This record gives sequence, structure tokens and C-alpha cells, in this order.
Amino acid sequence: MISDEQRVREQDLVDRVLASFDDTPDPRLKQITRALVTHLHAFLREVRPTEREWQQAIDFLTATGHITDDRRQEFILLSDTLGASMQTIAINNEAYANATEATVFGPFFVADAPLVELGGDIAGGAAGEPCWVEGSVRDTDSNPVPGARIEVWEADADGFYDVQYDDDRVAGRAHLFSDAAGDFRFWAVTPTPYPIPHDGPVGAMLAATNRSPMRASHLHFMVTAGGLRTLVTHIFVRGDELLASDSVFGVKDSLVRDFVPQAPDTPTPDGRDLGGRAWSRVRFDIVLAPGARG
Amino acid sequence: MISDEQRVREQDLVDRVLASFDDTPDPRLKQITRALVTHLHAFLREVRPTEREWQQAIDFLTATGHITDDRRQEFILLSDTLGASMQTIAINNEAYANATEATVFGPFFVADAPLVELGGDIAGGAAGEPCWVEGSVRDTDSNPVPGARIEVWEADADGFYDVQYDDDRVAGRAHLFSDAAGDFRFWAVTPTPYPIPHDGPVGAMLAATNRSPMRASHLHFMVTAGGLRTLVTHIFVRGDELLASDSVFGVKDSLVRDFVPQAPDTPTPDGRDLGGRAWSRVRFDIVLAPGARG
Repeated sequence: MISDEQRVREQDLVDRVLASFDDTPDPRLKQITRALVTHLHAFLREVRPTEREWQQAIDFLTATGHITDDRRQEFILLSDTLGASMQTIAINNEAYANATEATVFGPFFVADAPLVELGGDIAGGAAGEPCWVEGSVRDTDSNPVPGARIEVWEADADGFYDVQYDDDRVAGRAHLFSDAAGDFRFWAVTPTPYPIPHDGPVGAMLAATNRSPMRASHLHFMVTAGGLRTLVTHIFVRGDELLASDSVFGVKDSLVRDFVPQAPDTPTPDGRDLGGRAWSRVRFDIVLAPGARG
Repeated sequence: MISDEQRVREQDLVDRVLASFDDTPDPRLKQITRALVTHLHAFLREVRPTEREWQQAIDFLTATGHITDDRRQEFILLSDTLGASMQTIAINNEAYANATEATVFGPFFVADAPLVELGGDIAGGAAGEPCWVEGSVRDTDSNPVPGARIEVWEADADGFYDVQYDDDRVAGRAHLFSDAAGDFRFWAVTPTPYPIPHDGPVGAMLAATNRSPMRASHLHFMVTAGGLRTLVTHIFVRGDELLASDSVFGVKDSLVRDFVPQAPDTPTPDGRDLGGRAWSRVRFDIVLAPGARG
């Protein structure tokens, strides 16, 4: 039972903190800091942390900062696993007609991935079952978008992105461009499930809350074309049992695709000889909303 | 203008994130994670950050983590400057009769500071005007509390705590014990204003919001005695123009004291020869609430 006097003291403190931001010159920063103070104090007054619990929160953030380096971004993992990244995506990618939905960017994108020609292989030696990916890029009026830049990246069959390898190999990532008809095609590897890095503070949080670190199988895309909204998304594998428990809340029904298994020796679309291995194929037709976005 | 469909999508995501914590075994952790998710998403949906702004938030936390080490705790500074530390103090130290009020702990406490005898000097060579501090420790029924452990720490006249020096000197900190009558007395240096460390991300936040990093002049106390609530507090200097704008919101009216200036050659209470220097004196009578607290 919290006394009226105690409530007044707590609210008075909130008011003093809010007032300290009154002279913020930038109106947007002022808005953000005021909202941050309001929600942070509402959280504190609701859960009423002990001083030890608040110290544990400080320690958690400290450990999250200390494990973060050029190749490991634990704060993004934290944002992802609390659904904050996905909420930011949702806020910035409002539904527009039949435009393809966006999902989380994740921490594994690397700029300047190699260029592959249409029909080329983005695997770059990454382990996994070959997967033929084809589709088109169109605007919401069904006009083809030629020359769209398509960035693709994925984990290998062992669940690792190249940036998690011990060496500097580039694998499982590339960029290519749609052709004059807006179409694209490439070889990749069939996506498989993998855990997000869970040997750090975020992994400890997931373990303490009985949550799985596993991500549903997926293939990342980022598609940019002049005058159209940049699309950051994945496609997911229909039938994957992790679709309902993706650790970063990235799954949307509209992004689930049939990765159709192909028996060994099934002829490939481009005549490539896979040496008798099984493969899969998937189609992903992309629709970009209007409006250039960074 | 946010469409109804968009609102549904955003709330649906919040619900999915909350549900992911349903199997948390510890009920307190479940309560905290649910409240965190609720308030975090309310913040996001209110301010509607761009993806770039959210990345800036990630970058801010990353920089805060990277500047934090054994001697610099930027997350505590962040908590302090957002009033979160003071709110946690307020929540955990509800008003009790005439018990002395608590305030922020701050990042500069060091365990195992040297013992000084009653009447000894805690300055340890720290620069500053000598200050005679005396008072008593009592419970809320006015019974003396003998043998209370009194930890004292402060910045020097240049605004630095010893842990901010380039070497490992210990200065401006000590512990002592109240005598059989519950009384204590020691020499320190007269508190002066100083900025919190502001060459890092928190300093950048304060600069961007036109806030001062200055703390009102103060002397830190932590008082522990068996069966009584541990008190973490400061005393502040009446007349200090920074009392209304303390950067960590630590000032309470009940903690402001008269540091009475003493002209050079004024006899000292214990006959100490100050070599003709001016000095000051202050009285701080401490009242501890019942109930052992860690």
C-alpha cells in the first residue's frame, strides 16, 4: 500500500526530471526525452525495483555493452528479443496496398557484399542444400522495376553467418540487380533454423524466461530502387515448426513461402549440374511501395 | 494519422512479445519483463522513432557500454541523470517518522575505505578548505546508536574524487564509528560543486538538451547499524546556487545544512592548528529508521 505522501514525492520527482529537459533546443529530441522519462518512471513506479534489482539492471546493461564489438551487437539482439526492432519496423513500414511486408534487419547484414550475375550462386561455399530462388520486383501498379538492387544474406546449414566464422571468408551473401523485365534469379542454400547468439546477457535473459533462442528458417532480402520505399525483409519456410516462436518476432504470414523440395537428379532451371544432390526451389515476387526511404 | 489496421498490427506485436514471457518460472522476473515490454512498446508507439533514430539509440547504448570500466560507470550516470536512481531510492526509502531522508548513491563509493578515529581527518591529502563535521546517530525514538558504521566520501576542491586521479591515492573517503553516546566528529574538506563526468555519451546527452552536468556541493554518507535501515544520503550546502538544478536530482530540502564559515585563526573544536587557514563547520544529526536493509 503506497501512501498518498509517497505518491506525491514520486510524482514530484518525475516532474522535476521532465522540467530539466525544458530547454532542449531540438523539438524532436525534447519530445523523445520527455517520453523516455515518462515511460521509464512509470515502469519503475509499477515494478518498484529494490536497489539490488536496479543494480542488476545496471549490471545487465554493462555486460551487454562489454560483449558488443565490431562483429557482435548485443544491444540489437536485446532490441530484437524484446520486439522493439520489429515494432520500429512496423511503425516505419505501414501497410500500403499490396506492397511486400518488411521484417527485422538483424545484426548480420554487411555492406559491400559481392556482386553476382543473375543466376549466380550467393552461397560462396556456405554449407547447405542448393536452393533456386526466383521472382520479380514490381511496384504497386504492377510495373516491372528493372535494375533494383537486391541484397541477399543467410546463415549456412550449420546456423552460422560468415561474420561468425573464425576467418574472414565471405559466404552466404551477395547483391544482384533485377533485369529489364524486373525479374531475378539466383542460387542460395535452403534456409535452416539457427539460434541467435545466446552465450551473452541476452542468452541469459532468454534462458531465465524459458524462451528459445531459435529463429525460424529464413532468407534475408534488402531491395532498393529509385523512387520506391526500400524493403528490408525475409522469406520464411512454410512448414517450419518455429514459425510461431521466432525469437525476434519477425514472422509474418505474408512472408511464408513454399520451398519446394526437388529430388536428386531433377533437372535444374539453368542446367546446373548438382552432382546428384537434392535441391529446393522457391518463388518470391516482391512489390515495392512508393516513396524513397533511406 | 495512424490507421486502425496499423494500430491492430502494433498491438498484436505487443501481445505476441508479452506471450513469449508466459513460461517464465520466477514470478518476479515475469512481472518485470512484462512491465518492461509494456512500457518499452508504449514508448516506441508514442514517439514512433524512425529506423535511423532507433539505430542512434542503439549506438548511444553501445558507446555507454564501451566507456564503462572498473572506474567509470556510465550506465549509473545515465540512470542518475534521468532521475531513475533517485526514483529507485524514493521507492525503497519511504518516509518513516523523522528518519533522515536518503538520496543517490552515485558511482564514486569505494568499499574498504580507511578507518579514521573520531576527530580524525578523512581528507587524506585531498585539496580543500578544512571542514569540521559533527553530529549524532539516533533511532526514531531518540535512542543513541553507538557503534554505527559511518562511511563518508567527497570530491576535492578541484571537483575530483580520488578514483578519478591518475594514480591510486586514497583521499576524501574513510569510515568511522559512532561513540558510546552515538556521536561522531571528523575533519573533511568543505564541499564544492563539480560536474559529473561529461566527456562521454551522458555528457553529450546533457549538452544536447541544454542541461548542466553540475552537481550541487555535497558530502556523502552511508550509515549502517544492526537492526536499522541502512541510510545512503548526502548533506548539501545551504546557499549553493546549484541546489535547484542538481544534475542527478539528489537534493532534498531536509538534507540542506549550514556549513558555517570560520575566519582564519578561529579556535578549532579539537585544538587542531590549521596554520591560519579559514575553515567551516557543520552539524548533521542522523536518524535511522527501523528495519535492517541491505
